[in-house]
Amino acid sequence: MGYNGGMTKIVRAYAPATIGNVSCGFDVFGLAVERPGDEVEVTLRDEPGVVMLGIEGEFARSLPMEASKNTAGVAVSAFLAHTGIERGIGIRLFKHMPLGSGMGSSAASACAALWAANRIVGSPLTKEALLPFALQAEEVACGAGHADNAAPSLLGGFVLVRRTTPLDVVRLPVPEQVYWVLIHPDVVVNTAEARRRMKSEIRLSDAVAQMGNATSFLAGMLKGDIRRMGDSLEDVIAEPVRGPMIPCFDTARQAALAAGALGCGISGSGPSLFAMADGEVAAETIGASMGTVFSEAGIGWQLYVSKTNSEGARIVFEEGADEIL
Amino acid sequence: MGYNGGMTKIVRAYAPATIGNVSCGFDVFGLAVERPGDEVEVTLRDEPGVVMLGIEGEFARSLPMEASKNTAGVAVSAFLAHTGIERGIGIRLFKHMPLGSGMGSSAASACAALWAANRIVGSPLTKEALLPFALQAEEVACGAGHADNAAPSLLGGFVLVRRTTPLDVVRLPVPEQVYWVLIHPDVVVNTAEARRRMKSEIRLSDAVAQMGNATSFLAGMLKGDIRRMGDSLEDVIAEPVRGPMIPCFDTARQAALAAGALGCGISGSGPSLFAMADGEVAAETIGASMGTVFSEAGIGWQLYVSKTNSEGARIVFEEGADEIL
Repeated sequence: MGYNGGMTKIVRAYAPATIGNVSCGFDVFGLAVERPGDEVEVTLRDEPGVVMLGIEGEFARSLPMEASKNTAGVAVSAFLAHTGIERGIGIRLFKHMPLGSGMGSSAASACAALWAANRIVGSPLTKEALLPFALQAEEVACGAGHADNAAPSLLGGFVLVRRTTPLDVVRLPVPEQVYWVLIHPDVVVNTAEARRRMKSEIRLSDAVAQMGNATSFLAGMLKGDIRRMGDSLEDVIAEPVRGPMIPCFDTARQAALAAGALGCGISGSGPSLFAMADGEVAAETIGASMGTVFSEAGIGWQLYVSKTNSEGARIVFEEGADEIL
Repeated sequence: MGYNGGMTKIVRAYAPATIGNVSCGFDVFGLAVERPGDEVEVTLRDEPGVVMLGIEGEFARSLPMEASKNTAGVAVSAFLAHTGIERGIGIRLFKHMPLGSGMGSSAASACAALWAANRIVGSPLTKEALLPFALQAEEVACGAGHADNAAPSLLGGFVLVRRTTPLDVVRLPVPEQVYWVLIHPDVVVNTAEARRRMKSEIRLSDAVAQMGNATSFLAGMLKGDIRRMGDSLEDVIAEPVRGPMIPCFDTARQAALAAGALGCGISGSGPSLFAMADGEVAAETIGASMGTVFSEAGIGWQLYVSKTNSEGARIVFEEGADEIL
C-alpha cells in the first residue's frame, strides 16, 4: 500500500465501556454502554511504527507509555503489521475510565485507537476485521484474548461471543427501554487474579443452570420481555468466587434490587457492579442506592447511567484525514 | 369438585415425539416434531383411581400395565390427586414410538394422557399447569424429572427449560423451512445408564464452549439464520460420552452432514440421532443416507421426517366429553 499524500491528519475516536459476562454469560456475553468510554487521537508519522505521544485524563496515572505495553499501542501495531502500511502512527490516549475496573477499560482504549488508526489511513478494514487486533491487545492487558469486552466496545450493542478461535460473534438488539447502571467502587481487584480464582472444573448441574439463565436472557431479549432478562441475570459460576472479593458486593446488589433493578451483578471480573433498569429514572434511583452503600462503607465510587450503546467505536473529530491506496 | 353428569365419554389425544438437548442445550433445550407420537384414549369411570385398560401398537411390548409404573398412569394419577376429581379414569395407550429411544417416548405417553384426561373432565387446567404432572411421570420413567421432553411434547415447538424448580419454560419459534430428521437404530441404550456415564464435573472451558453454542443457536433462531443454528449444533458435554455408546454414530453423523444436514447429533440420550435440514427434500435425502449407514452395519431402523410440531399435545377424537364443575 502507498500513501497518496495530503494534509496534516488528526483523527480522534471514542470507544465505550462494556459490561462483560452480563452475569449469566461468562466469557460469552458482553454489551456496550454509552458512558464512560475512552478517546484516542492518532496522527500519521513518517517513521514506521507506533509511538505513544501522551496519556491524559483523570485515569491516566500508572498507564505504561511504551506502545508495546499499552493496549492502544499493541492494537495499532498489530493493525499496521497486518495491513502492511509503512507510515507510523502517533497515539494520544484520553483515559476517562478507571483501570482494572471490570468495565472493559483496556478494550475501550484498544478499540478507540484501532478505529481512529483505521480511519486515518483511509478505512481499509471493517470493524469486524479490526476485532482480532483488539484481542491481541487484550492478551497483553489480561493475559487472555477474550472478546466479551472488545467486541461490544468496537461493534456496539449486545454481543454474543460464540467462539474466539476462529472468531464468531453475533450482535443482538437490546430492548430500547433498558438502561444500565455501572458503578465502580474505588477498590482494587486484579483482573488476572480474579480469573485465577476461577476453578478449571465446575459442576455439570451449575453449567446446566448457567446455560438455562443465559439462554433465558436471550429469549427475553428476543421477546422484548425485560423482566425475564433481568430475572435471568443469575451467575452460579463466577459470582460465588468473585463476589466475596468485592467489598459490600451483597449489600450493594440487594440495594439495587430493592430500588427496582431488574437484575444486578458483577461487571466483567469486577469490582464494578452493573444493574439493569427499566428506564432512566429507575436507573438513576438504583445507582444512587448503590452509591449510598459504598459511601456508608467509606468507599468512593464513580457512577455511570446510560442506555445500550448501539454504535460502538465512533469518530468524534477528524482533520484532513486522507486515503491510503 | 362434582361431576355434572352426561353421556359416555371417550377422549383420545396425541402427543408428539421430542428431540431433547438439541445437541448444544444439554437438559435445557427440547423441541417437538410432527411424528412419531403416542396416542392415549381415556374414559371416565365411577370408581376413583386410574386403570390401564390396554396398551396397543407396534411398540406396546414390554410396557408395564400397572398404572403406577406407566408414565401415562402416573401422570393422570397425579393430575386427579391435584384437582381432587373423584371419578376414575381408564387409559388405553397406543404406543407408536419405540421405548428407550431418546425421542421422548415416555413423555409423549404422559402428555397425551394428561391432555386427554384434562379434556374429559372439562379442561380445568392449561397445558402449562399440567406440565408438573408430566414431570412426575418422567421421574418414574427416567429417574429424573427433566422437562426437556415433556415441555415440548405438551406445549409444542422449541422449548427452553430454564429451570425445573420452580418450573420456568419459554417457547420460541423455529424458522418455517426447518425440517427434522429422526432416525432410531434398533439398538438398546439405557437412558438411565447413559445419564450415569455423564461426569458430575466438567471443564469450565467446555461449559463456556457449550454456552457459546447454545446461545448462538438461539441467536440463529432469533435472526432466522438457519446456517448459524445448524453450525451451533455442537455438543462438547454429552456427545463425547454418549456417542461411543451408539453403534455407527460417527459414520451416520458424517453421512448426514455430507448429505446436506445443517447439523446432526444425538436425540436426547440416544440411540436415536437427529439432523436439521433446510426443507423436506433435503431432509428425506439426509434420512436415507443415515439409514444406509445403519443398514450396511446390519442394524434395523425407523426414520421420521417432519417439521417442528407447533401445537404439542392435541385432541384427535372425542365422544360425549362433558364438564366437571
